[in-house]
Amino acid sequence: MKNIFKITIGFIITALAFTSCNNGESKSNSGLSSNVAEKVYVAPGEHDEFYAFISGGFSGQLSVYGLPSGRLFKVIPVFSQDAEKAWGYNEETKPMLNTSHGFIPWDDSHHPDISQTAGKLDGRYIYINANNTPRIAKIDLTTFETTEIIEIPNSAGNHSSSFVTENTEYVVAGTRFSVPIPQRDMSIKDYKGNFKGALSFLKVNPENGEMAIKFQILMPGFDYDLSHPGRGKSHGWFFFTTYNTEEANSLLEVNASQNDKDFIAAINWKKIEEYVNNGGGTKMPTNYAHNLYSDETHTATSTMINEVLTVNPLDVPGAVYFLPTPKSPHGCDVDPTGEYIVGNGKLSANLTVHSFTKMLDAIENKKFDGEAYGIPILKFEDVLAGSVEQPGLGPLHTEFDGKGNAYTTFFISSEVVKWKLGTWEVLDRKPTYYSVGHLMIPGGNSAEPFGKYVVAMNKITKDRYLPTGPEVTQSAQLYDISGDKMELLLDFPTIGEPHYAAGCPASLIEANSKKLYKLEENKHPYAAKSDADTKVVRKGNEVHVQMTMIRSHFSPDNIEGIKVGDKVYFHVTNLEQDYDVPHGIAMIGANTSELLIMPGQTETFVWEPKQVGVWPFYCTDFCSALHQEMQGYVRVSPASSNIELSWSLGEDF
Amino acid sequence: MKNIFKITIGFIITALAFTSCNNGESKSNSGLSSNVAEKVYVAPGEHDEFYAFISGGFSGQLSVYGLPSGRLFKVIPVFSQDAEKAWGYNEETKPMLNTSHGFIPWDDSHHPDISQTAGKLDGRYIYINANNTPRIAKIDLTTFETTEIIEIPNSAGNHSSSFVTENTEYVVAGTRFSVPIPQRDMSIKDYKGNFKGALSFLKVNPENGEMAIKFQILMPGFDYDLSHPGRGKSHGWFFFTTYNTEEANSLLEVNASQNDKDFIAAINWKKIEEYVNNGGGTKMPTNYAHNLYSDETHTATSTMINEVLTVNPLDVPGAVYFLPTPKSPHGCDVDPTGEYIVGNGKLSANLTVHSFTKMLDAIENKKFDGEAYGIPILKFEDVLAGSVEQPGLGPLHTEFDGKGNAYTTFFISSEVVKWKLGTWEVLDRKPTYYSVGHLMIPGGNSAEPFGKYVVAMNKITKDRYLPTGPEVTQSAQLYDISGDKMELLLDFPTIGEPHYAAGCPASLIEANSKKLYKLEENKHPYAAKSDADTKVVRKGNEVHVQMTMIRSHFSPDNIEGIKVGDKVYFHVTNLEQDYDVPHGIAMIGANTSELLIMPGQTETFVWEPKQVGVWPFYCTDFCSALHQEMQGYVRVSPASSNIELSWSLGEDF
Repeated sequence: MKNIFKITIGFIITALAFTSCNNGESKSNSGLSSNVAEKVYVAPGEHDEFYAFISGGFSGQLSVYGLPSGRLFKVIPVFSQDAEKAWGYNEETKPMLNTSHGFIPWDDSHHPDISQTAGKLDGRYIYINANNTPRIAKIDLTTFETTEIIEIPNSAGNHSSSFVTENTEYVVAGTRFSVPIPQRDMSIKDYKGNFKGALSFLKVNPENGEMAIKFQILMPGFDYDLSHPGRGKSHGWFFFTTYNTEEANSLLEVNASQNDKDFIAAINWKKIEEYVNNGGGTKMPTNYAHNLYSDETHTATSTMINEVLTVNPLDVPGAVYFLPTPKSPHGCDVDPTGEYIVGNGKLSANLTVHSFTKMLDAIENKKFDGEAYGIPILKFEDVLAGSVEQPGLGPLHTEFDGKGNAYTTFFISSEVVKWKLGTWEVLDRKPTYYSVGHLMIPGGNSAEPFGKYVVAMNKITKDRYLPTGPEVTQSAQLYDISGDKMELLLDFPTIGEPHYAAGCPASLIEANSKKLYKLEENKHPYAAKSDADTKVVRKGNEVHVQMTMIRSHFSPDNIEGIKVGDKVYFHVTNLEQDYDVPHGIAMIGANTSELLIMPGQTETFVWEPKQVGVWPFYCTDFCSALHQEMQGYVRVSPASSNIELSWSLGEDF
Repeated sequence: MKNIFKITIGFIITALAFTSCNNGESKSNSGLSSNVAEKVYVAPGEHDEFYAFISGGFSGQLSVYGLPSGRLFKVIPVFSQDAEKAWGYNEETKPMLNTSHGFIPWDDSHHPDISQTAGKLDGRYIYINANNTPRIAKIDLTTFETTEIIEIPNSAGNHSSSFVTENTEYVVAGTRFSVPIPQRDMSIKDYKGNFKGALSFLKVNPENGEMAIKFQILMPGFDYDLSHPGRGKSHGWFFFTTYNTEEANSLLEVNASQNDKDFIAAINWKKIEEYVNNGGGTKMPTNYAHNLYSDETHTATSTMINEVLTVNPLDVPGAVYFLPTPKSPHGCDVDPTGEYIVGNGKLSANLTVHSFTKMLDAIENKKFDGEAYGIPILKFEDVLAGSVEQPGLGPLHTEFDGKGNAYTTFFISSEVVKWKLGTWEVLDRKPTYYSVGHLMIPGGNSAEPFGKYVVAMNKITKDRYLPTGPEVTQSAQLYDISGDKMELLLDFPTIGEPHYAAGCPASLIEANSKKLYKLEENKHPYAAKSDADTKVVRKGNEVHVQMTMIRSHFSPDNIEGIKVGDKVYFHVTNLEQDYDVPHGIAMIGANTSELLIMPGQTETFVWEPKQVGVWPFYCTDFCSALHQEMQGYVRVSPASSNIELSWSLGEDF
């Protein structure tokens, strides 16, 4: 690798580590509050204009907010168990959290991306990545439920994910941490030159949004941080930022900050797709889980897959290039036209913007500046569109308003900076409170942004809200960007870490939102679709209870003949067919969560009674004026008992 | 049992089961939005005036909101696992969820109550009950963390809990479902006359808020629904609503709605306390868990207790009476003066208010109307203070503003009704959207309410927010009650089910809120208080890693010598001593959650590597500009390997 200059950056490191916010100083808009208050107030009974889907970061989930109110409508369980919704606790959803490492109850969800058609948001699905144990999930925006999770093999720290191409042809994953591929017992100190970084392209089924790994490109052992697809003229390409091109394996805060420039990797995925469609690539044995949830059986299945197609980039000439980019770039953002690729160099004094047109020209005319592991490095000056000079400290991410403006977050100087594409002049800057990470304009990473609001997602909150002990909420801030100058409207706290977000006009989604599951379409093998279907069946020490719930009773609500040592499966069907009438069920002493069952749905929990006695269960969701009366009992007899199974409702038995 | 009249109520049941909201009609305050918007707008950087602690209901947690903004500041994990915060996943907090039934990852949290001194909120602790597997938790309001959970034996459905007496002498629990005491194998159909309902009084240590079960009163086998303490003149008494005085065991929506009146049980706990202090009561063998979390060791311990003191109410003459109360009463609410006890009879046409003074007189003059299982029933007319005539349908709960007014929720007619104590006249009514359960005025169940706002907690939302599929948020509504008429200000969605709430002025709590844990006070046995303390120690197939984290590296960050089959304990200490600088850590493939570690704290996760290879870990909380560089690797060798443990930071090893 050549022409990557090193500078001494010790003082920068020191500054970065300890500078993070406008310490403790409370600033407000209160002088303007009347006007501003009206801008964010959504009166009771009225609806927000936009959905904002904000990742939970270290919560592992995806949160649904309304804009401009900042109100939280739902936390969609994705990668982490959620006892409230039985996600990962009931028998139906446990398979969703299966991986090659077994059942994993948590992950770190980062980058939601809404599916697109012709470069515009289509509101059908959201894809979101798991960072820790590499996976991508699909959320169905008719049910707002996670309906698919696929594991990404040969990866570690699936960070540059899960962005979609302009017709949702592909969802992309890229490894943050390079690893031995295939995994093997080797010394960490042999990292350099031996570890690899897999960039994965998952083909999406246009009918149902389902993913399948089409190929993995095995890249040099850098850290792949973020990515975005080309669009319009650059459709067919995908761009990934890298850092740690030094290939350090320890104390990266120093050792991975040596190179003056790292790279943006430009991947011509159409060329690689053609290559593999023609039989190119190498099948590699591996092991990863593909988990699908069915709205018909209300049940997930997990399938292990044992092979993945890998591609050596050197085998596909013309498909992969490196664009030198100062310095340890984080966000990799493509403007709505597809011409500009912004590399947010978090240790760079300036903000670097590459030109797609110039990139093609540099490729055609072989304006190379050496190579890295055989991959051509394009000449920096020959791909540079321009740079925003000294816009702030610590740029992380850029979004676009569709009117020729870009908005970049600066973590260290805690601000959002608005600048002009093409002229690179700074137009406005507003402080954030504090230490902003990413930002989101609805549609801001599509060909058609809705440039009315920008949401800044902050990492530090300190004094912005009433204190809650050592742990304080992370937070978002809403700015009006409809005028020339940005205007801070609202601070709103978030669930988990608001790592990244996707937003869209409510009109794209609300009309398609499902209100219930039709009982007649319920294909759960243990569904009881009326009280006549209810029963209790013993199979050895397994007992299967097929139970119904409707306002305001369970059927059956008295069960005898259960014994200590039994494994009792409660398969419970909610017979309601009205909107917003879930029921819940919980059993004292069960070593699992409640079930919270939507109208028409069947769910199952397992109870292993350990003690003789009479034990109650009840409805956990206040469903009617007689909710408190919605209860029942199970009699548990000794293991040696001869009491036969019996069950009833409303009569002596 | 005498004088409990039965009426035919089939038509009421039918109406109750299917009437629940103003169907689908969207109503708004938009004409007033300008003025109202300002009332709820808390400008960026300014603070809310009140804390609202709203139970998560079926989430099992407690949520912290600000009023008037309705913003969610923190979800405090209490009874349910929370992967985001490692609650119930890390080694330190797993013991908090231990019970006599083993580890339980979920519960249903209902009724938070803030500790009191001299009848006023003191802002030290919040107690909250687990409904399903009976427990009470204590949350420390300096750290906003759950620091104690105690199980309640001989109980099932711990619903009439966890309310505190006026000097927090006691926290109270009452069983919703009666059960055999002690538990035994018996037929459910023998419920009547044989099951018992335990009311438990937990003595609170005034120094540290810790609970210990002082005694349990074994009451007749009714369902005990809610409770509140006397105060002022009625201090020393506790009042519990009952339903299912019919002692039905099946189809309670019909069979437990037969009696025209059920009871409020009045318990003279001071008399019983004196009785047991003098050696009264019967020690009964039992088994329950008492779990304590230490802020010094950052670790919880669980202790099993094998005995509980029970009291037969017939053994303490003059200590227990029944007040007849129409009909299946839910809320049991005592006004700020302690004179009035409101029984919110959910199937009653009127709202019944008892007089404490008249109750004492009726007791003294033996104005009895028979007895139930030996417990005197006071004459209804002789204890009645008055009733609010036909105030609405389905009253559930009443709060007080301290200005002589009461506010009652009506589930079926979906409204909050303001009425006057003493005259019983209805002063105002406002619709709720929809099907309101409880309501909360900050301090509203103390001697000193702060009657500026009331929060209505609703069970049905339907069209009030942008749709989110079949599952929609539950919701709260904020009303201004400072004037003669209530004014609806804001709809705000909630986490879980907003079952009940407690609120107080921010000034009571914010000054005491802890900002970090002092490193020098950290007594965790595996704490590493500097990089010099870090080490990796093997004990057979257990490996203990003592690791530190500080912006922006782990020490050590490279570990070799781990083998397949090892059980690797990562004990990780956050060395930061600044406010709002947590770090996180996660390991690919770990079958547990991340750790999210506050400054000065040590936490532990266990990793059992199953595959040979080099596996990364990283910081999960964006902590600095070089957060992405905060990572490390662990080499896993075959079980048969002879590679010695080695570890390092920033150097070849």
